[in-house]
Amino acid sequence: MQRDKLLMTPGPTMIPYRVRETMARQIIHHRTKEFEQYFVKMNEGLKKVFQTQYPVLTLVSSGTGGMEAAVANAFSPGDKVIAASTGVFGDRFVKIASRFGLDVDVICVPWGNGIEPEEIENRLNGPDGDKIKGVLMTHNETSTGVANNIEAIGKLLKDRDCLFIVDVISSMGGLEVKTDEWGIDIAVAGSQKAFMLPPGLAFVSVSEKAWAAIEKSRLPKFYFDFLAYRKSLLNKTTPYTTAASLVIAASEAVEMMLEEGLDNIFARHRNLGEACRAAVKAMGLQLFADEKYASDLITAIKAPEGIDIEKVRKAMNLQYDIMIAGGQQHLKGKIIRIGHMGYVDGFDLIRTLAALELSLAREGYPIEPGTSVSAALKVLKM
Amino acid sequence: MQRDKLLMTPGPTMIPYRVRETMARQIIHHRTKEFEQYFVKMNEGLKKVFQTQYPVLTLVSSGTGGMEAAVANAFSPGDKVIAASTGVFGDRFVKIASRFGLDVDVICVPWGNGIEPEEIENRLNGPDGDKIKGVLMTHNETSTGVANNIEAIGKLLKDRDCLFIVDVISSMGGLEVKTDEWGIDIAVAGSQKAFMLPPGLAFVSVSEKAWAAIEKSRLPKFYFDFLAYRKSLLNKTTPYTTAASLVIAASEAVEMMLEEGLDNIFARHRNLGEACRAAVKAMGLQLFADEKYASDLITAIKAPEGIDIEKVRKAMNLQYDIMIAGGQQHLKGKIIRIGHMGYVDGFDLIRTLAALELSLAREGYPIEPGTSVSAALKVLKM
Repeated sequence: MQRDKLLMTPGPTMIPYRVRETMARQIIHHRTKEFEQYFVKMNEGLKKVFQTQYPVLTLVSSGTGGMEAAVANAFSPGDKVIAASTGVFGDRFVKIASRFGLDVDVICVPWGNGIEPEEIENRLNGPDGDKIKGVLMTHNETSTGVANNIEAIGKLLKDRDCLFIVDVISSMGGLEVKTDEWGIDIAVAGSQKAFMLPPGLAFVSVSEKAWAAIEKSRLPKFYFDFLAYRKSLLNKTTPYTTAASLVIAASEAVEMMLEEGLDNIFARHRNLGEACRAAVKAMGLQLFADEKYASDLITAIKAPEGIDIEKVRKAMNLQYDIMIAGGQQHLKGKIIRIGHMGYVDGFDLIRTLAALELSLAREGYPIEPGTSVSAALKVLKM
Repeated sequence: MQRDKLLMTPGPTMIPYRVRETMARQIIHHRTKEFEQYFVKMNEGLKKVFQTQYPVLTLVSSGTGGMEAAVANAFSPGDKVIAASTGVFGDRFVKIASRFGLDVDVICVPWGNGIEPEEIENRLNGPDGDKIKGVLMTHNETSTGVANNIEAIGKLLKDRDCLFIVDVISSMGGLEVKTDEWGIDIAVAGSQKAFMLPPGLAFVSVSEKAWAAIEKSRLPKFYFDFLAYRKSLLNKTTPYTTAASLVIAASEAVEMMLEEGLDNIFARHRNLGEACRAAVKAMGLQLFADEKYASDLITAIKAPEGIDIEKVRKAMNLQYDIMIAGGQQHLKGKIIRIGHMGYVDGFDLIRTLAALELSLAREGYPIEPGTSVSAALKVLKM
């Protein structure tokens, strides 16, 4: 039997029918009162999810476009910034900042580890500390399964003349992010992760401190010019044609999120993360990420010795129609990653664990059927 | 009775159910063989629509993002270019090129007129002609209803060391554009016009001559870096997460276009343009655009003296659920614009004309019922 595919990947994630249905509707014009209602509803909802009092800008782009927009708007050529190389996505910030001519001080963190706030603190208190104009980092590093402690780092930066720019692409709406309270100046989220939407939109919050820097920035931009977006927002619109069908879908998805309640969403993800890690350990497998920084949205698991883990992953996909992710770059074949973010519940997780058990067993890994599922069910609050 | 809204605007345009239905499906992962099939089908179809032998890049952005990408990839700071100010969208190219530090020679054309190829030729043959690195212009200027003669201008540039960069956002797939034969080096199309898709994707063709310039460009870019897109295309994918649901919709829309046949599509639009202009004249109204350059995708009509044309437009929208566009900037209240591009046929046009007649009559404009519809039906080939 061919089943509907279950995506347990770190984005794209599953989309509820209530959201998908909106995209089958006939298009409406984006410069109308009717569209404005959806746009305003999305914007008000985004502010709640971001826990910010400032407007959240919506860009038609992938998350990477949002990251570039943050860099191009906040800085000028030669500005000194710190960026943390924590995995594929931390490295992306390093590349973007370098490409735009910033002076990037790269903090290298072994993959699977989180950034120690002290590393940032030492640099800020170092001889060139006052010249640092920004700290760029990833909150939830999906390539390694690490969630960085952005709360602690944000507090270091709050009263300094230094912007805190965070890629919350995969975390926002899954892990708690108190944008304003934690002093995040630019937070960049993506639609296709915890927001339960297709890819295509980036959501970007901008603090008052960031706006002051943006007004002085000398890097060229037009499509991503935040000042144009801010101006258009006063008229409840966007400077250029927005992806109307995705915005309407977003207004519905954000409504679903607020109906569930942010605290319930965060608790659900925390519980999924705990249950998944407990199940992994019960199977005798090892977690890849340092548990101190383990993400509740994605669990990276080391391949057990002697097992071709890519074969296991393929079997889960082809035999059971459940897609999980493999390792990226040098971790290819070394780890698997189970995403549990967005439109996902405990049943999805135990289904995935059952398929993982069956597929591991077929490759010769010794496992008593039900071991991981039982361990998960003991933890899951459903 | 509340009817389904008929959009006769210059984008967004109506979307056939066959295309909309694809977007209600559950999302699939963009790094899979299954998705690759849609991506390849879209790409092959786009090459046919663009009439190019070169790959067409797909960006997640509005058309404006594609225009910026063309500028940021093709040039370096201080490069001399010509840009034609023909209306809102011609001006946008001027702004983008200026923002990116190019030396822009602006050709000002009265709104409603087309660019005379001689204007370009004179500059190319002028004292600084050899220094001109690019000509940037709009094919179908929706703000005025003008279609420029890009064929003639392309031929002037083909054998020169000067790139021809054309905004075909609203024309591609509606008017014939022989990208390679006419020497268009970078053509930027948008999804929400003649392609019968929602907004959110830009399609960009790049000639061999343009690739040579792109490799030397020194303007900063990352998200829009064409070299990264070219590299990923070899693996049938995109460098960053693409808007998968829109790409799948695009593969379907392009299939529909090829089923109809490009020549039939162009003939349908030509016929709609002719019928609409004949109907306008039969009503005693005046066309805004110089007929020599009248676009077959959009008809701009001057407001008759003494008639509040915005009231007419509002009545069409509120009473008859048909949306046409008004004038932009200084043309607000002076013209109306009927879009007839993409998923539109003669019945949609006569419905629109009937509503226009009724709404004009209500405002006191003298008109015999059926005048414009009869005139259109005499021309329409259905």
